[in-house]
Amino acid sequence: MTVLILTSEEDVTADLVVARLHGTGTPVLRLDPADLPGKAVLSADYAHGDFDGHLSVNGHVLSMGGLRSIWVRRPGEPAAHAADPSPWLTAETRQALYGMLHSAAARWMNHPRNADQARLKPWQLRVAHLSGFAVPPTVFTTAPRLAREFVEEYRDVVVKSASGPPPGDPALTLPTTLIGPDTDFSAVAAGPALLQKYVPKRADIRLTCVGSRLFAARKTAGPDQVDGRFGETGHAWEPVPVPERIGKAVHEYVTLAGLAYAAFDFAEDWDGIWWFLECNQGGQFGFVELETGQPIAAEVALWLAQHRADRRASDRRG
Amino acid sequence: MTVLILTSEEDVTADLVVARLHGTGTPVLRLDPADLPGKAVLSADYAHGDFDGHLSVNGHVLSMGGLRSIWVRRPGEPAAHAADPSPWLTAETRQALYGMLHSAAARWMNHPRNADQARLKPWQLRVAHLSGFAVPPTVFTTAPRLAREFVEEYRDVVVKSASGPPPGDPALTLPTTLIGPDTDFSAVAAGPALLQKYVPKRADIRLTCVGSRLFAARKTAGPDQVDGRFGETGHAWEPVPVPERIGKAVHEYVTLAGLAYAAFDFAEDWDGIWWFLECNQGGQFGFVELETGQPIAAEVALWLAQHRADRRASDRRG
Repeated sequence: MTVLILTSEEDVTADLVVARLHGTGTPVLRLDPADLPGKAVLSADYAHGDFDGHLSVNGHVLSMGGLRSIWVRRPGEPAAHAADPSPWLTAETRQALYGMLHSAAARWMNHPRNADQARLKPWQLRVAHLSGFAVPPTVFTTAPRLAREFVEEYRDVVVKSASGPPPGDPALTLPTTLIGPDTDFSAVAAGPALLQKYVPKRADIRLTCVGSRLFAARKTAGPDQVDGRFGETGHAWEPVPVPERIGKAVHEYVTLAGLAYAAFDFAEDWDGIWWFLECNQGGQFGFVELETGQPIAAEVALWLAQHRADRRASDRRG
Repeated sequence: MTVLILTSEEDVTADLVVARLHGTGTPVLRLDPADLPGKAVLSADYAHGDFDGHLSVNGHVLSMGGLRSIWVRRPGEPAAHAADPSPWLTAETRQALYGMLHSAAARWMNHPRNADQARLKPWQLRVAHLSGFAVPPTVFTTAPRLAREFVEEYRDVVVKSASGPPPGDPALTLPTTLIGPDTDFSAVAAGPALLQKYVPKRADIRLTCVGSRLFAARKTAGPDQVDGRFGETGHAWEPVPVPERIGKAVHEYVTLAGLAYAAFDFAEDWDGIWWFLECNQGGQFGFVELETGQPIAAEVALWLAQHRADRRASDRRG
């Protein structure tokens, strides 16, 4: 029974997991969907009263009946490396590849259906609230008046991007930024703004959830540091125990969202409360593992390698 | 409690349903996501310990607490009509709009998560087989040898597009086409081919499923007509009863796929067997209603207008 990893060629995080899988003798096939058709060959057969499919990469053949699990890491766009690429060829190849993989009885980390929904930031806040997390007051709005009222009510407010940084070359960074009531809100009418009450924090928390295993890490914040992703604080990520209430909320969240893997970001305030900021279903874990020594790659490998029946609780509708 | 219809401005099928909803006094809000931000204003509030949101279109305000159901008809791309459109503005607006709508407790026809999966043709065949339909032998392949072997085994084979016609101006039509073993299959290596055993048919069947109500229509095929969508047969769509076995399979299919609406296409062979060809979760119904007089628009309106508790069975995880 083979583990399929969908990712682009250069991916050191995937390399870590592949090494662990090799270590346990679990067969692995690595495919960048961009290499299909071309380096990879696919055939899905709905012909003899049932379904079977095959995927062949560099001479290694994987039968859908022998597929244990699928890790959607950083897959390229289907057919992106084709000799004659086109949006239509990408659409046809996406149909063939993902249609075949959805037909298989494999476990997904994470299932694309759940992953797409889990990327919606406003929905994340709703699910976080329902799961029992402390969630900073937040508004998404295209109404300048409501944006101003929100800032007047909460005073210290940050503005963020919901979908990530705007594309561009060189890439624009868009750090979370503090704003005040004197801000000009007229531009909100032209594009939705994500405004969130600023949580004065003494630390950033990154909690990685793999199946039912949780790894929390903490990094002391620099003075007046707003966005933990930018700027050097002189502090490193250190392992930290998961409070029981947080553990329950994480379990509830990944169950509601149908996720086998999730990376949560929290701000720890001066009372020690962990405020939910976001949950990235495809979040990196290499940097945390490097600094904390937490065996996250090994746990991902274990989840991917286990039999369906091994651990029902961590299967989460995948 | 209001029904929200996501569709572009010109949509006569939506007009039919809106007229029915007006007839029963159900409030309706119609939004083209392309008009956001601009004509429409949105605000989603995760601020006072709970969630609330508002959508305002042409002075009509809809609160998320007053949202009964969402019909995803033919929505435009978010922010497509913005004064200064960009992929990033579309991504941010998609986050804000769909994130807010996913947060609401409304029923969906169909939920985007299930709709995306339901568009995968290979997966459709798998689900159709599991649901009990007769499915013509089919292969999706990028291997020329397997394509040739499939045609040699089944002799009369059609080739189709999985994702729809290639884009272009003028638009290319890509009718389902009969091929034989003398075909040159080398191009299969450059793009996946969908090959299906040809079902000699005496009629096309279109079955529309709305919640738990089924409407089947039949159109006698022309002699040697391969693709029912092209060419005039001189025959019209006529209502036809749904065989019990088909009704059971449809129910199973929409339950597995999580769909509240689905349009099934079958080929009726000379023994009267209905062969599953595809299931379009967003399929048109105006042309069938026009020719058969089947009250499909009224049933869609009824589904959208009903309370959540009214009909548990037709709610289907929406």
